[in-house]
Amino acid sequence: MRAAIIAVGSEMLGPTRLDTNSLKITAALEDFGIEVVRKTIVGDRLDDLAAEIEFSLSRAGLLITSGGLGPTEDDLTREALIRALGLKSEIDQSIVDHLETRFRARGWSMPEVNKKQATVFPGHETLANERGTAPGFHLNVRGEDIWVFPGVPSEFEWMLATYFVPWLEKTIGGRTRHRRVLKIAGMGESAVEERLAPYYAAHRDELLTILASPGGVELHVTADGPPDSARAMVAEREKELREIFGRRIFGADEDTIESVIGEVLASRGETLSAAESCTGGLFSSRITDVSGSSRYFMGGAICYTGAAKIAMVDVDPEMIRQNGEVSEPVAIAMAEGARRRFNTTYGVGITGIAGPTGGSEAKPVGTVHIAVAGAERHEHRKFFWPGTRAHVKWFSTQSALDLLRRFVIKVDS
Amino acid sequence: MRAAIIAVGSEMLGPTRLDTNSLKITAALEDFGIEVVRKTIVGDRLDDLAAEIEFSLSRAGLLITSGGLGPTEDDLTREALIRALGLKSEIDQSIVDHLETRFRARGWSMPEVNKKQATVFPGHETLANERGTAPGFHLNVRGEDIWVFPGVPSEFEWMLATYFVPWLEKTIGGRTRHRRVLKIAGMGESAVEERLAPYYAAHRDELLTILASPGGVELHVTADGPPDSARAMVAEREKELREIFGRRIFGADEDTIESVIGEVLASRGETLSAAESCTGGLFSSRITDVSGSSRYFMGGAICYTGAAKIAMVDVDPEMIRQNGEVSEPVAIAMAEGARRRFNTTYGVGITGIAGPTGGSEAKPVGTVHIAVAGAERHEHRKFFWPGTRAHVKWFSTQSALDLLRRFVIKVDS
Repeated sequence: MRAAIIAVGSEMLGPTRLDTNSLKITAALEDFGIEVVRKTIVGDRLDDLAAEIEFSLSRAGLLITSGGLGPTEDDLTREALIRALGLKSEIDQSIVDHLETRFRARGWSMPEVNKKQATVFPGHETLANERGTAPGFHLNVRGEDIWVFPGVPSEFEWMLATYFVPWLEKTIGGRTRHRRVLKIAGMGESAVEERLAPYYAAHRDELLTILASPGGVELHVTADGPPDSARAMVAEREKELREIFGRRIFGADEDTIESVIGEVLASRGETLSAAESCTGGLFSSRITDVSGSSRYFMGGAICYTGAAKIAMVDVDPEMIRQNGEVSEPVAIAMAEGARRRFNTTYGVGITGIAGPTGGSEAKPVGTVHIAVAGAERHEHRKFFWPGTRAHVKWFSTQSALDLLRRFVIKVDS
Repeated sequence: MRAAIIAVGSEMLGPTRLDTNSLKITAALEDFGIEVVRKTIVGDRLDDLAAEIEFSLSRAGLLITSGGLGPTEDDLTREALIRALGLKSEIDQSIVDHLETRFRARGWSMPEVNKKQATVFPGHETLANERGTAPGFHLNVRGEDIWVFPGVPSEFEWMLATYFVPWLEKTIGGRTRHRRVLKIAGMGESAVEERLAPYYAAHRDELLTILASPGGVELHVTADGPPDSARAMVAEREKELREIFGRRIFGADEDTIESVIGEVLASRGETLSAAESCTGGLFSSRITDVSGSSRYFMGGAICYTGAAKIAMVDVDPEMIRQNGEVSEPVAIAMAEGARRRFNTTYGVGITGIAGPTGGSEAKPVGTVHIAVAGAERHEHRKFFWPGTRAHVKWFSTQSALDLLRRFVIKVDS
């Protein structure tokens, strides 16, 4: 089976936005061995969009579209489907009622334009959208399957998982590609590649992809074939890779370093707090991105000044005077102070210079001290992350999470 | 003039890579007022690629392609151009000599396959590539312009700057498009659209794009034409839009709501602190994303438990007992407690239920109370943001930033 993808929206034809929804579709299609032959981004013009739909169906028997289902005049996917495929449409009053209820729940009245989102195509399946206002569609026209999804990524992903993947499962009869993603923290992409040289030499014709991501380096191991043998093959390679990287591999597939830390803490009934300077709350925010984090995260102090470090987590003013706010002893005192103030098993302290101003020759922008404190010991690391402010903040939290993870599971760095 | 873009390469049809070259082209085209009607990514198959070229030229008079000019069997752009456009080709010996010299300079001999890169199309312009081995082409077929570039980003960008932009300059006679982005907070996309109805009616044939982004709703006002009149036109429209939306417009172009708040606080020598519960540090992290925020942001407390709210920002335990942690008085007490503890001009308090667990009938997941406190007054708003945890966190910070912005500039909601 050949598939085509259309992303609808003029904003993705400008210099600032890319279509990222298609990555989720291609991943799903790859799992089932379906070849993607083209992806297109088309603007909000009815004739362009209708022509694109027709041409796509001349090249592929499966078409997936995202976007253009909003309530505004620019949202023309429904109209283009009608024109390209000769569909009939009507307004579904039950969807209008549902939309009105949704708006009322927020204390708003539904704008008249939103009624357009209650359009359905009789004889074709309407896909209820539990994450937003625009329903999607599964059309079958002249034997070709057309899936129509909203473009908002959270809605799009929910629809893909809820409707599209189960349909693939049923239609194709099971995944033909098996994939395992192993996630590595605390190493750069080229260091990972170097350590993989013997593995590559041993498995020359197999597919292993190394991917740098904000959350670390990912190894994508894939094998095609009958489920049992493909699964066994992937498991075998995972074992080899775990021997190479050991505890540098912090998790697999959907794991994040935050979720892995959370699982360990929750399972042990242990707790966590933080005192942050240069990361400005980003560390605590990442920890609390994990559902259920209120079981183990008690709180944190963001201490953007010396006075706040003294008042909120009891750093000794004399220590700051002698070492400066960005220093090893202050990072440790912050970790210990947070631990004491919030009465937690572990405390994390982060102090550094996010820039672009505030650096000096001795402590340039990007200098960051990170400490983790427990009941009986603490650990400290100094990092240097040159780059933009966002870069320094992100990699400081990434390093702090990895230091914490290894401290908690008692793995030496 | 209408333009289409094709990126060639199967690797961009998988789940890990996007086409980013097209962003550079769209930026160049926008500057000259050329509308991009579609962008396509197509794999390394001759019939797919040839069909794509033909279809693109049926939709647009200017076509730009990138990729597929390498020396391997997968590199089929030249063959596809021959098939789609009926071109004649030959091997240019001077290019073969040049390639051989290039290889020799590195101490290698040229692989036979590389000869393919010396293919030219008599009667059409060949574009020398000083950054790599593959020349590009500028074809003119039946009055339509086709630009063919290599896909390696460094080579692609060099060619764009060296050949394509000067051609645009000459053909169009100078940059023609002027743009202004106005940013709105505290209103949804459809509410913005509704309020724009009279504007739309008055300026039917002009381009105004409404774009929902995580940071609010954006209005993109553009005008084409000679620089002076286009600029004047954009300024005139901006004035009209500011009359419609007033202080709902928080900034323009590169502004973020965080940076706008920062500018006001810094210019007045005022300061800020925060006490966060359900947002877990994200509010403070967004505030500190702004370079120079250490001038006005003193710090914050993340209070994920009742005990932390009591200990870190002095919320009265009796108040929590009577109202619950997620309530108006607690949000106000948090804002005032942060303000006092950090000794700042303003304090922000956020308390809510991020979910997916922890909700009740009276206080469902997504219920959020936000307060801002100053020396003489405070403001409170209750919000309801149903959705995922990430959604609740993000929109809570967005609402808090907007409430703070309007509190600081003393605009009534």
